[in-house]
Amino acid sequence: MKAVCLLSGGMDSSTLAYVAKSKGYEILALHLNYGQRTENKERACAKKIAGLLEAREFLELDVGYFTRFGASSLTDKTIAVEEFDPARAHVPNTYVPFRNANLLSIATSFAEAKGADAIFIGVQSLDYSGYPDCRPAFIEAFQNVINLGTKDSTKITLYTPFISMTKTDILREGQKLGVPYEYTWSCYRNEGKACGTCGSCHFRMEAFAAIGKKDPIEYED
Amino acid sequence: MKAVCLLSGGMDSSTLAYVAKSKGYEILALHLNYGQRTENKERACAKKIAGLLEAREFLELDVGYFTRFGASSLTDKTIAVEEFDPARAHVPNTYVPFRNANLLSIATSFAEAKGADAIFIGVQSLDYSGYPDCRPAFIEAFQNVINLGTKDSTKITLYTPFISMTKTDILREGQKLGVPYEYTWSCYRNEGKACGTCGSCHFRMEAFAAIGKKDPIEYED
Repeated sequence: MKAVCLLSGGMDSSTLAYVAKSKGYEILALHLNYGQRTENKERACAKKIAGLLEAREFLELDVGYFTRFGASSLTDKTIAVEEFDPARAHVPNTYVPFRNANLLSIATSFAEAKGADAIFIGVQSLDYSGYPDCRPAFIEAFQNVINLGTKDSTKITLYTPFISMTKTDILREGQKLGVPYEYTWSCYRNEGKACGTCGSCHFRMEAFAAIGKKDPIEYED
Repeated sequence: MKAVCLLSGGMDSSTLAYVAKSKGYEILALHLNYGQRTENKERACAKKIAGLLEAREFLELDVGYFTRFGASSLTDKTIAVEEFDPARAHVPNTYVPFRNANLLSIATSFAEAKGADAIFIGVQSLDYSGYPDCRPAFIEAFQNVINLGTKDSTKITLYTPFISMTKTDILREGQKLGVPYEYTWSCYRNEGKACGTCGSCHFRMEAFAAIGKKDPIEYED
């Protein structure tokens, strides 16, 4: 059994790869560089995690075309990453239009070409983001697209084990599986010390606080 | 009204862009270079067509990551492009795994970022190919993914006006719209003179023969 695991180098996708491995899959790690600010740090983390899991492949692809559309603070350096705001009603400006469909399309091409049985993606619909391409209905619709858009002999199941879990649940799961969180990166802004104030840092810090453990990475003062 | 038009530089997509223009859309031409053998020729054709249609944008993106998967004669130079075989029962080896989902995901990101209302793609399900990602059920499923995976305020309609048309029907339509077929390219193998024997040449030649016109491009003897 082989599974394509989307491995960004963040907490969620790293935990996800440990989950896939624990279910008996050989890992085909797929790391996508789409021009985000903290790519170098994320790649280093993803490679380290893939190595620890003895991944069968580590494929890094440049999908830098996202930077050509603009319209997201993650990929357009002229737009500031907005601060976390618990009262926020709008989709945050870190939203990259239709990103997960792009990631899943690439993962499906890779999986079909390599004869993999599964794709694991670490999307969450709960306490996170308001991104439309993280909702369960989107994932179900995408499974249907996989079934119809690949050869009839191809059978690929899309797994989203974290879709109904909170970041804290995921961290608890990762602690059980022995995920080395010192080799994961979450901050949207920095590659040295994490900023501690962007949405991604906010949820990471909250999760470590909730389980009463110290986050092994460093933060700015 | 703005429409993203997937414009490869082939007969179908060029005719498609003329159809979109005739329906009153401003054209956002999207040309994807995915490492196919005849890319230089196709790009030149696509640019010419976009210029003639006074496209609002011509965005060329490198999606060369397809070459990293292999498994298709279109992108893997170690696999020969197979000859057209009318008795063929299998999916032809020019199939690029899940290609259209990748193209449509990119088109949707572009459309959402630019506030476009529509996406036009020149897929056909009839006399063509047996590619799973050209069937109507796949397109319907993808429209559902667009609806669920973009912001609630985003409304993008996927148009496939050729899905139930033969190549000959498309060519007839293009003749009415004045499409200059001398600036379109179909051959999967060559960039100078078309080979005349690959599946793509086969259908092009058949269509011109059916309408009793001379194809303005040159073929090998």
